[in-house]
Order: sequence, then C-alpha cells, then structure tokens
Amino acid sequence: MRNVAIIGIGIIKFGELWEKSLRDIAVEAALNCLEDAGTDRVDSVTIGCMSSGLFNGQEHLASLIPDYLGKNNIPATRVESACASGALAVRTAFLEVASGISDYSLAIGVEKMTDVSTGMATYALASASDQDYEAFHGITFPGLYAMMAKAHMERYGTTREQLAEVAVKNHQNGALNPFAQYPFTVSRETVLNSTKIADPLRLLDCSPITDGAAAVLLTTVEEAKKYKNFPMVIIRGIGSATDTLSLNQRKDILEMVAVKKAVQNAFKMAGKTIQEIDFAEVHDCFTIAEILVMEAMGVVEPGNAGPATLDGLTALDGKFPINPSGGLKSKGHPVGATGVAQIFEAVSQLRGESGKRQINNPKVALTQNMGGSGGSCVCHVLEVK
Amino acid sequence: MRNVAIIGIGIIKFGELWEKSLRDIAVEAALNCLEDAGTDRVDSVTIGCMSSGLFNGQEHLASLIPDYLGKNNIPATRVESACASGALAVRTAFLEVASGISDYSLAIGVEKMTDVSTGMATYALASASDQDYEAFHGITFPGLYAMMAKAHMERYGTTREQLAEVAVKNHQNGALNPFAQYPFTVSRETVLNSTKIADPLRLLDCSPITDGAAAVLLTTVEEAKKYKNFPMVIIRGIGSATDTLSLNQRKDILEMVAVKKAVQNAFKMAGKTIQEIDFAEVHDCFTIAEILVMEAMGVVEPGNAGPATLDGLTALDGKFPINPSGGLKSKGHPVGATGVAQIFEAVSQLRGESGKRQINNPKVALTQNMGGSGGSCVCHVLEVK
Repeated sequence: MRNVAIIGIGIIKFGELWEKSLRDIAVEAALNCLEDAGTDRVDSVTIGCMSSGLFNGQEHLASLIPDYLGKNNIPATRVESACASGALAVRTAFLEVASGISDYSLAIGVEKMTDVSTGMATYALASASDQDYEAFHGITFPGLYAMMAKAHMERYGTTREQLAEVAVKNHQNGALNPFAQYPFTVSRETVLNSTKIADPLRLLDCSPITDGAAAVLLTTVEEAKKYKNFPMVIIRGIGSATDTLSLNQRKDILEMVAVKKAVQNAFKMAGKTIQEIDFAEVHDCFTIAEILVMEAMGVVEPGNAGPATLDGLTALDGKFPINPSGGLKSKGHPVGATGVAQIFEAVSQLRGESGKRQINNPKVALTQNMGGSGGSCVCHVLEVK
Repeated sequence: MRNVAIIGIGIIKFGELWEKSLRDIAVEAALNCLEDAGTDRVDSVTIGCMSSGLFNGQEHLASLIPDYLGKNNIPATRVESACASGALAVRTAFLEVASGISDYSLAIGVEKMTDVSTGMATYALASASDQDYEAFHGITFPGLYAMMAKAHMERYGTTREQLAEVAVKNHQNGALNPFAQYPFTVSRETVLNSTKIADPLRLLDCSPITDGAAAVLLTTVEEAKKYKNFPMVIIRGIGSATDTLSLNQRKDILEMVAVKKAVQNAFKMAGKTIQEIDFAEVHDCFTIAEILVMEAMGVVEPGNAGPATLDGLTALDGKFPINPSGGLKSKGHPVGATGVAQIFEAVSQLRGESGKRQINNPKVALTQNMGGSGGSCVCHVLEVK
C-alpha cells in the first residue's frame, strides 16, 4: 500500500448561501484546494454528499462536479454514509492513491441544505435513520440524541450545564474561524435558556442547517515531496466502522461501537494511541454527541466527559483540544461537507495556519466523523512531518 | 497493486417485488453470493444504489445493509453514479482489495423502484440528468435518448427496424434467463407497434422500472486459490470515466466519450483489445443506447451498429454476443443493481454456468455500465483462468 499525503486543502465560508448552487459551492471549494496545492493535476475525484437527491433533486454528482470543475472525463465517484459522507470521500480518495489507480485524487465534501423547506430538510436528514423503524414513526435526530442525553444524565449524572459547556466552548473557537456559519460566542445561560427542541436538548445544543463545501487533494508521499510551500501532512491511519442503524437495536445506546472501532482501527493502522494525539475534530452534531464521542475515543472514561469539558480539558488551551474549528455547532454542519471540513481544519492546524484559533505546535491530529445516531463512523489520524 | 478475483456471485429474480423491502432484496442477493462463494468472510461492503433517498426515503445504506446482513461493525461505503452505481460499487470493492485495506470485499447493487408512483419514479430517475438545465425544464430520459436516436437515424440512416432488433435480440436472451423480469420473446412487429413514448422510441425500446439486487465477493488472486468449486475469474481491467452531465454540453451527442474512455482505460489496464473480448454485457437502457455503446466500444465503426445488429453480430450465437443475460431491456433495470448484475452474468458465463443462454466457451468478458445519458461510465474486463 502506498503512503498518502495531503497537499492541498480548500473550504468556503459556511452559511445560508442562497445565491449559490450545489455545483457552485463544490467547485469553489475544489478550486480553493487546487490553488492551495499549487497544482491542478487531478486523476480522480470523490464527492461526499449525503442527500443531493432529496435536497436538490440532483443525483449523479460524479458526472456533474468534475464537469463544472473543468475536469471532464476523469474517473469520479460519489460516496454517501449520511453525515459521515465527507470523511468517507477522503477514505475513498485515499484508496485511489494507496492502490496505485490514481496518483492525484481529489476529495470534495458538499451539501446544499437551505434550498428546501424546514420540513423537507428534516425529512431528508431523517433518511439517515431507519426509515421503516424510526423515521416513519415520527422520530427525528434531535429526539434520538435527546434519548441518549437523558440516558447519559441518568446513568452518569451528566448535567445540562456540562452539555451546554460543549456549545459554549465550540462557539468560543468558532468565533475565531473566518469560515464559520455562526462565528460568535454564546454564554452558558444563553444555551440553557434557548428554545427547547427535544428535552433535554435546546436549540443551542443542536448543530445548524448549513450550505457548505470543502476539499482536499491527496497524492503519494513520494510525489508530495515536490510541494514545498507547506510542511507535509501524512494520512497515517484510517478507520471505518458501522453499527446498527436503529438506536433501538443497540445493546447500550450510550456505547458508540462504530466510533470505538473506527478510532481503534485508525490508531492500529497509524501505530498511535490516544495519548499521542494533540487535538481532535469530532462530530458534535448535538452537544451530547461530543460527550459520547470523547468517551468512545478513550479521551476519558465513560461518564467523565461532562465534568472534563466543564474543567476545560477540551478547550483551545486545554490538554486535549477538541473542535478548534468551532465544530459542527458553530462552524455549521453541511452534512456531506463536514468530514472534509474536519480534515481541512486538522491540516490547517498541523501546518500552523489557523490564525487566532491556532493550537500550540500540534504534530498529530485525529478526526472523527459519524453518520446518523452513530450507525457509521470514519476516522483519520494525520501527522505533520 | 494486488490482483483481484471474483469468488462469489449472487442475484435475485428481478421484478415488481412489492412483498419485499429494499433491505430484504439487498441482503437476499448478498446471502446468495456468500453461499455461492462458500465463505461468509467479509472485511468490507460497498453498496451501489442510485437513489434510495428519493425512492425509499432511506439514505445511510452503508449502515443499514451490513446491519441486516449480520455483518455489523465492518467498514461500509455506499457509492452512487446514477445508473452506473453498480459497476462503481465493484470498482470500489476492487480498490479495497487491491490497496490491501480489505482482503475480502463484498459489492452489492440494489434498487427498489416500484414503491413510489410513476411520477415520483420519473422524478427520481431524472435526477441523473442535470436538474438545473435539463430535468427542471421537463425533459426526461426517454426524451434525451430519443434525440440521440433521431440524430443517429439522420446521420447514419439507422432504421427503426434496426433499433427494434436490439429489443428482439435481448428478449430472446432474457427468455432463457430465470432471473429476468420479462423472460419472454417479442417480435419485431410488436416492438415497432408498441406505444409511442418519445419519437422514435416506443415502449419496447425502453428498459423497465424494476426492483432488484445482485452481489459479488472479491478477494486477492492468491486467496482465491483456496476456492476450488469454480474456475477462477480475475478482474483484469477497470475503467471509469465521465462526460458532461447535460447532453447539450457535448460536442457531438452521438459520441459517448465517457464510454470510449472507460473502455480504453479498462483495456489498457487489462492489456487487451476489443478483438480479444468474447462477449459483452452493455447498458441498453434504450435500444439506441446499445447501438451507441457498440460504436463507442469499437465493436463496429460509427454508423454500423444498426446493420450489424440486424445481421446477427451480437446475437447469442453471433460473432460478438452482447447482453446474453437479456440486458436491461428484458432482464430489467433496477438502476443501482444493474452494473453488479452485469458482472454476475459475465462471471456466470465465464464459469460455464449460464444454462440455456450459455455462450460457447468464453474466456474474456467486457462489462459496460453507464449513468444518465452517458455522463459516467464504468467498465470491467474479466478473464477466466
């Protein structure tokens, strides 16, 4: 298997981008990435997108996006694993390069979510849960994560203040990120008193509906040596895993098995442990998600993520910073783009390019992107040379 | 890059399967495949499906299908490239094994199309065309292919009788295929007099709406030597290419550039030429599609596919049999399953297991699966050892 490096990263400012189309934002992020890389060589493209069919009446992005990128005729693939589609696109681009089929492979994550009604957006997002056994009966994602939050509070004594601190911390980081949809701070009181969505989760416990795109360019480590503008960032490990789609089929709804296995697999491939990770970008679609993911990744023991967050462990200047980008909460969550945007942030931090939100001299990063209520998860371990 | 073989194939009878769900048919095909292989070892799964979001309100098949297959926790990916999603799933599974990430990788193609109204099915299929510049303005796929047919008739003198012969020939083959949705013969007169859909295409020039699934199990050639029940079928070449999504953006609507490039790439990788191919399974979504594809693949010179079909070149006992399975026309076209079903047929023929539709001792097969009006194409060259 060939070793793979990331030589280009691109993103656009997330938001409600009503003046731009799905193809516009995907191409804009891709062009930013190629400009960053300093090459326009692309042998293959992988697009991560959750549901352009339901959001935009547009499938077949594997034809559309290379076409409008001016890369007509090259091999292209669209991958989907709900909100983990972005990281899955990077993994697929990794396989293109690692196998030797492509030398330069571009991964683009994109979702254009705000061109439909809220009802339609909710229906589209609910298609990441089990249509027959969950969505059809009326439960949506805030409800599923609310049940996990309730169970966590009951078993471990996690408090609403601890959950709220995830949002407070991520908005503090996001306020320093020029690409964030909501680049402002929020107080704990504002989170605690925001509109109730699904008890105990309130509006500011939830990530928003977002239009956005991000892209990364991969090549072999050997080839990457030609690009000297930046320190080289290498993909050391990739882990992908799945779990039951329905929450009701799990032995324990507080154990995110797909996250645990994906992280373990990525660490095994990278030859790293959680102790060697300098920071992580994780999937905080709801505040409780970041708590559960911290525990599944082994950052803390089960039950300790709430107190640890309140103690500042995961703050930008903490011992284990999580979501320096602002996370899905503040940066926004264009579902298919999120996993690629996490890798954008990881590479940006590892290169030391993150401006006001820069972590002090990080060497190894972990990204964790998941689908639905944890039915799928894709993790990457990145290291700067 | 590791060499890859196909050690298991599975399919279900195509049709209007109202008593079965999306997950049921995907799992049924996968279990048939594992039974055929004589192993249930699966390290990763790739699902090819075009639009389960629009057809079934269900994305996140990468979690759903392994879950219901009893392969919870393994890495899984869903890929989409409109009607080429199936072959793209096999290509992705190939990358899993070729790269060394997986030793045993399962590709499943599936589409459940008959649970929605005809209007919704038409909308879902039209999402494979350009929503902004084609679908939104009312054109659907019969209309797009009808324009190609009209142009072919005008430029080359292709006749309606020649087009109809594609349907006649494919139904002759499909009548011998126990998995076909419409396993009966049709006369040329029946095709010529069937309901007009989009002039010059009539009902029997069009492939049907179908529920179906198929699966193939891939491993390394080294590992495949353990399985001695069948002759070994090796994936010698893979080619994937794209073209403009809109027909109106092409220099020549009769030149299928993605098909041409995908076939050339597959031949290059395999070290083969069209002269060394014993038969092909191709994407006859409309009769004119088979004509255009024959010319793009180099089976005949442009303009000669119509007369050659009428002369019997591509019949089961012809010099270059095309679609021994009955093709999309007679076997049915569950869009995401089609590319995998083509490979099922190719392997079945290469093993000599195709019963009444068996071609005499074939050694090398070509499969060609495309999306939309040819915006994407994925080809495979298979050889029996």
